[in-house]
Amino acid sequence: MYPFKTGSFAPRNAWYVAAFSKDVGRELIGRTIVNTPVVIFRKEDGEVVALDGRCPHRHFPLAKSCLKGDTIVCGYHGMAFGPDGQCVDVPSQVHTPRALRVPTYPVVEHGMWLWIWVGDKDKADPALLPSLVELGLEGEGLTPHTMFFHEVACRYQLLNDNLFDLSHLAFLHGTSIGTLENASTPEELVKRPGFVSSMRHIRNAPCPPMMHANGTYPTERIDRSMGMASHLPGLHCGITRVGYPDDHPQAPGELISMNRVYHAITPSTPRSCYYLFSVAVEDDVDVERMQINLAPVIDEDIFASVEIEKMIDLYDGVPPPELMVKSDTNAVEGRRMLQAMMDAEAAEKETA
Amino acid sequence: MYPFKTGSFAPRNAWYVAAFSKDVGRELIGRTIVNTPVVIFRKEDGEVVALDGRCPHRHFPLAKSCLKGDTIVCGYHGMAFGPDGQCVDVPSQVHTPRALRVPTYPVVEHGMWLWIWVGDKDKADPALLPSLVELGLEGEGLTPHTMFFHEVACRYQLLNDNLFDLSHLAFLHGTSIGTLENASTPEELVKRPGFVSSMRHIRNAPCPPMMHANGTYPTERIDRSMGMASHLPGLHCGITRVGYPDDHPQAPGELISMNRVYHAITPSTPRSCYYLFSVAVEDDVDVERMQINLAPVIDEDIFASVEIEKMIDLYDGVPPPELMVKSDTNAVEGRRMLQAMMDAEAAEKETA
Amino acid sequence: MYPFKTGSFAPRNAWYVAAFSKDVGRELIGRTIVNTPVVIFRKEDGEVVALDGRCPHRHFPLAKSCLKGDTIVCGYHGMAFGPDGQCVDVPSQVHTPRALRVPTYPVVEHGMWLWIWVGDKDKADPALLPSLVELGLEGEGLTPHTMFFHEVACRYQLLNDNLFDLSHLAFLHGTSIGTLENASTPEELVKRPGFVSSMRHIRNAPCPPMMHANGTYPTERIDRSMGMASHLPGLHCGITRVGYPDDHPQAPGELISMNRVYHAITPSTPRSCYYLFSVAVEDDVDVERMQINLAPVIDEDIFASVEIEKMIDLYDGVPPPELMVKSDTNAVEGRRMLQAMMDAEAAEKETA
Repeated sequence: MYPFKTGSFAPRNAWYVAAFSKDVGRELIGRTIVNTPVVIFRKEDGEVVALDGRCPHRHFPLAKSCLKGDTIVCGYHGMAFGPDGQCVDVPSQVHTPRALRVPTYPVVEHGMWLWIWVGDKDKADPALLPSLVELGLEGEGLTPHTMFFHEVACRYQLLNDNLFDLSHLAFLHGTSIGTLENASTPEELVKRPGFVSSMRHIRNAPCPPMMHANGTYPTERIDRSMGMASHLPGLHCGITRVGYPDDHPQAPGELISMNRVYHAITPSTPRSCYYLFSVAVEDDVDVERMQINLAPVIDEDIFASVEIEKMIDLYDGVPPPELMVKSDTNAVEGRRMLQAMMDAEAAEKETA
Repeated sequence: MYPFKTGSFAPRNAWYVAAFSKDVGRELIGRTIVNTPVVIFRKEDGEVVALDGRCPHRHFPLAKSCLKGDTIVCGYHGMAFGPDGQCVDVPSQVHTPRALRVPTYPVVEHGMWLWIWVGDKDKADPALLPSLVELGLEGEGLTPHTMFFHEVACRYQLLNDNLFDLSHLAFLHGTSIGTLENASTPEELVKRPGFVSSMRHIRNAPCPPMMHANGTYPTERIDRSMGMASHLPGLHCGITRVGYPDDHPQAPGELISMNRVYHAITPSTPRSCYYLFSVAVEDDVDVERMQINLAPVIDEDIFASVEIEKMIDLYDGVPPPELMVKSDTNAVEGRRMLQAMMDAEAAEKETA
Repeated sequence: MYPFKTGSFAPRNAWYVAAFSKDVGRELIGRTIVNTPVVIFRKEDGEVVALDGRCPHRHFPLAKSCLKGDTIVCGYHGMAFGPDGQCVDVPSQVHTPRALRVPTYPVVEHGMWLWIWVGDKDKADPALLPSLVELGLEGEGLTPHTMFFHEVACRYQLLNDNLFDLSHLAFLHGTSIGTLENASTPEELVKRPGFVSSMRHIRNAPCPPMMHANGTYPTERIDRSMGMASHLPGLHCGITRVGYPDDHPQAPGELISMNRVYHAITPSTPRSCYYLFSVAVEDDVDVERMQINLAPVIDEDIFASVEIEKMIDLYDGVPPPELMVKSDTNAVEGRRMLQAMMDAEAAEKETA
């Protein structure tokens, strides 16, 4: 499906963010990950587990059920499943066949996130996760804060595409966090397997409108370095460093502040996805104000992506060919890598 | 369609409950029965009739039209149809061709219900209706009361399945009318053509939570006999008898109360149905409180069924195979009988 | 699709009303015309232009974008398009390839309306528009007033059919602007290529209920001439002349009042359309009251059409064959002409 080949939706052999780690507790959480229903909870010993979310008896959602100790008791007929997926009770019969079980899915808590793997279990290598150092969550002295969780009515790739091309800051966010320089400044691009990044060094330019209105920075013209590092399939780490311009009389070239933002995009159904947004900031940052400021910015991204989903729908899911421009380099690369992942999975399936 | 063969939705040659008899009067009632639009009303002489609900001129719903005497005047261009379906007026022309008519459907008032037959007319035998004696509406001195009418956003069979397997009382209704004994107590099963039933005799067990909170019964531990008699395709008659346990000091083994409940499930479109709930009770029962108590219970059944419909939708209508357990005996039998009815109709159609 | 052949939806080589001319200004207007997204605005020099509504870069709706001078700047990544569709800026690159452009669509302001042509440009002849004299907008001394704009959840032809057969006034509008004579009085029919009309001369009959209640006319019984002239594919011009009957003691046969009404029906998606309603009246008419009176009348037409769309949906879009009666002459002719337009387009496409 657009923008991938017909039949390609999302890679399964990949770590996806299912939730913020701190939000996973003793309440059952339901998610649909790459069209697979899952139920997630934290065991009494603190370990997080994920089971298939469909009771194999009558398809009732296990996420709408009850947790007793570490056992999920289906809310419909009471079939009970341990954290290993094994059925431990069928209330209407004495015997509980060993064959009754639901699949489990590998999960890892890493950074602020709970990551899940709904593909081949034996490929679920935690070493594939982005390193916390690289994400700036270790070694930079930043403090992480989770911010938003959205279910969005569009295919996940529209939000990935949004993040692959930051020139949209100049227009979609032109009244808040972007200026025209976000589009016109040349990008420094990096790619390696499963990774693309972009960085723009904007020199001696006006503050973005929101920061100007806020008085966020102690000077009118600033240097900004803004970039996005995309760890495929769906974690995008943004970085912003703001400094005094080189010609500033008091503090030429000095750093004013820096922060990182994290956009986790997870495919749910073919036309819906999850969007989890969080940040890592210097200790003295007013996080509450940052959250208030950024809420409408994320809403603009969601607005654009949902509008595009509706536009695609007008063409029965097959829109006319699109034009690629310079700022699409990472989108082209990122899509190509995702398609390659899906092609490999399809080839493997065919072999099997 | 699940849980039936591809292409099987619902038998047409069958009596379905379209409405509570007492609700059928001089207001036109619109229903869609097995994907067939119908309009129902009571004639001036008291007889109920059902006509096809689509004006054959421009497809306007006759149920959104006007009743003049015993004639339906289409609300769009005024084409008029008598209670026999014969067109009696075409306002724009003098002549009314005899060929202009809409189909009529056999209806019968029986018990609290208006039953309709949208299949082959010559098979519409009222003798196929469940007997009032068997339903406990005659000979037991019970008083009938209609309670709820719902349009439900799920395929009808999910509600049939709900009623075929009463072990769900222990879990879905575990905070109201069920206890664990509703699942663990062995069933007495009966089947005959077009009929399955289940009965559990629960001995010397705690009151269900709602009755306990209510003080419905004058004692803490009770004997309960609870069963469901399913008259296919869609009338399920529940019976509850509550008594003092055999070891009760004052009234060992004596009956405290009994009642019957009636769940009529009628297929509407492939993914929607009607649910009509009524009861028959001893004269001195507080029916109003019973209605208030049972409303959330029925809502729980609807909740579970709609959740399952959504889960099935995730699999594009073809969910993975399901597991059968002991309490599914009646569901298996009931589905088998319904499938046989549909197979017979399909075979007959092919022959013709 | 119903009521046309499978695969036939709406002619493309035709003028459709996209908006009331006076509503087109410096705000971008988005429409979907025969499943084609368009964006419409008035240039600084007053000329109206229409461009394809989909940004060819990432499918973002240009109607949700910004107008700078006469250039649309896409609200997502800032790709800019002049009023001739030519891309004039790609913010992320210095060079703007000449090949980057969006289609434009011919538009004409004519009467109260902005007309658009989404078919072959070289066929877009303004001479095909209905003449203002014939529409009564020139030479009759009437004053035009725009009234309602609706997006309606039904295929456009259901509203065309509504207007092809005015016998519905007697029933759908039987409590407001119609009397039984609207159905029973014989029609005078006219047809010529691309045009059908109907006229009923109702003599010495009661006022319609709304006018009676209003005291609109100074007498109880009136002569009414009511007709509809349908300029295919979608502008229907209604005319009403009311006079004293020939036997009136004071003013036999004298005209009391006359007005014209205009129903523009424009196909949007296969199951939705636009409905723009306006009038032309004698100078001293209380237009505000007329608008209040007619709002529920138009709502009745929309109600009927949407109900029929739902009924058709019950049959998966292929309803049973319908019955034609005398008042359907224009519907039959009008549909035939529209089908012929679509057949011609299909044949041409095949040749090409």
